[in-house]
Amino acid sequence: MMCPKTDSHHSGKNHTIQIIDVKDLPVVKEGDNLAELICNAAEQQRTAIQESDILVVTHVVVSRAEENIVNLDMVVPSDFAKSFAQRFNKDPALIETVLRESRSVVRMGDGKLITETKHGIICANAGVDQSNVPGERNVALLPENPDRSAQRIRREIRRLTGKDVAVIISDTHGRPLRKGEINIAIGVAGICPIRDRRGEKDLFGQVLRVKQTAIADELCSAAELVIGQANERIPVAIIRGYSYPRSEEAKATELTRPKEKDLFI
Amino acid sequence: MMCPKTDSHHSGKNHTIQIIDVKDLPVVKEGDNLAELICNAAEQQRTAIQESDILVVTHVVVSRAEENIVNLDMVVPSDFAKSFAQRFNKDPALIETVLRESRSVVRMGDGKLITETKHGIICANAGVDQSNVPGERNVALLPENPDRSAQRIRREIRRLTGKDVAVIISDTHGRPLRKGEINIAIGVAGICPIRDRRGEKDLFGQVLRVKQTAIADELCSAAELVIGQANERIPVAIIRGYSYPRSEEAKATELTRPKEKDLFI
Repeated sequence: MMCPKTDSHHSGKNHTIQIIDVKDLPVVKEGDNLAELICNAAEQQRTAIQESDILVVTHVVVSRAEENIVNLDMVVPSDFAKSFAQRFNKDPALIETVLRESRSVVRMGDGKLITETKHGIICANAGVDQSNVPGERNVALLPENPDRSAQRIRREIRRLTGKDVAVIISDTHGRPLRKGEINIAIGVAGICPIRDRRGEKDLFGQVLRVKQTAIADELCSAAELVIGQANERIPVAIIRGYSYPRSEEAKATELTRPKEKDLFI
Repeated sequence: MMCPKTDSHHSGKNHTIQIIDVKDLPVVKEGDNLAELICNAAEQQRTAIQESDILVVTHVVVSRAEENIVNLDMVVPSDFAKSFAQRFNKDPALIETVLRESRSVVRMGDGKLITETKHGIICANAGVDQSNVPGERNVALLPENPDRSAQRIRREIRRLTGKDVAVIISDTHGRPLRKGEINIAIGVAGICPIRDRRGEKDLFGQVLRVKQTAIADELCSAAELVIGQANERIPVAIIRGYSYPRSEEAKATELTRPKEKDLFI
């Protein structure tokens, strides 16, 4: 998958990017048309969606709309899950759910569980989320195919508004070697997740040798600044005024680096 | 260092954050008053600095202003640096410079060098930067003390404008397990780098158990969206409208997780 080099250099005019919270969405439930809810909410707050907006949507509302919710009472844990759960005072059904969402375990220790999900994302608890899900025993899985979810929302927004937008599905991730979580991209549509600046020149005319910017992750982190502010009542942000490299085929997994190719670990 | 819990919940009104590029700064050189250059440039583009703005400044202009530049021709490499450099066709003086900036080597392989800097940051090449530095043989080191650099810019901006702002010094980092670089914080002043949301409730009234957001890193990633756009001619971004937790004592090293405590690696 080759993404085109960016053509978004600006010269002359000042350039402001806006991060706009999309609020007062109803509580998203299974079967909801998320794109329609987003469009309506944006219109009601007079920030109707514009051409080339980037919509960052937190995965948990996508999972709720797609009914990708599991009731832990319905999960029969394996002996392995039970023994790990008992050792660290965890819920065996939750451990079982995490393992079922994973293709491999990266690390099990201290009661924490880092796995590679079936999508190929390496994260804590396979992204299984106990927050912002109705029902005490319900957890949200990551969307089945986050790129497809993003594509679906993007297509539906085009149908409803005629506007071509980029859609990114975000998740909150802890990180190796750094404290605190940031938001990153787990699904993309219409946007290339990496901006390739190799070959461009620096301020003094020297060619940049390594410069591939994970813009989809940076956009999710920017979106979190409004999304994270209000007890999750804001599941969507619009980023307006950022000139992004387009792609019809890009996938968020372009952002994951296989463990065996990693230099840090 | 305890940072207060955020009190920045918004209700009712729509909330837009702006990311504004500060451009047309002169090429920053040693001894320059960076705060003054930033204030002047912002005023000239009619985005004069306001109370509670967050200024994100790329480290390389700080290093240039603070004369934290090394001419590789003046560096005598050790035998160790020479042998590593020869093996991977690298510049021995550059390798020597990286080692001198480091307190330990995390990984040496494939010609790449991941170290823990003397500041306690784990990154490639100890942050030694060959881009955006005048002179073919000159490289920029990280600022000697990035928190102090941020504090100095902040104090000077207050003196010049009377406004209290937050200042963050940013750097571009590659990351374990994910492809592409993002911008993160290596120095902070006036802002708590982590927003602690533990104890807050989610949409359905359940208490969030783990939620510490690395807002300083997210702000740097947001800033990169304007800074990275124009061949490094924009070394500064203003982030306006984000309500941040204040701190007079916070340090960017609150964001680094010691390798021995890391679950991922």
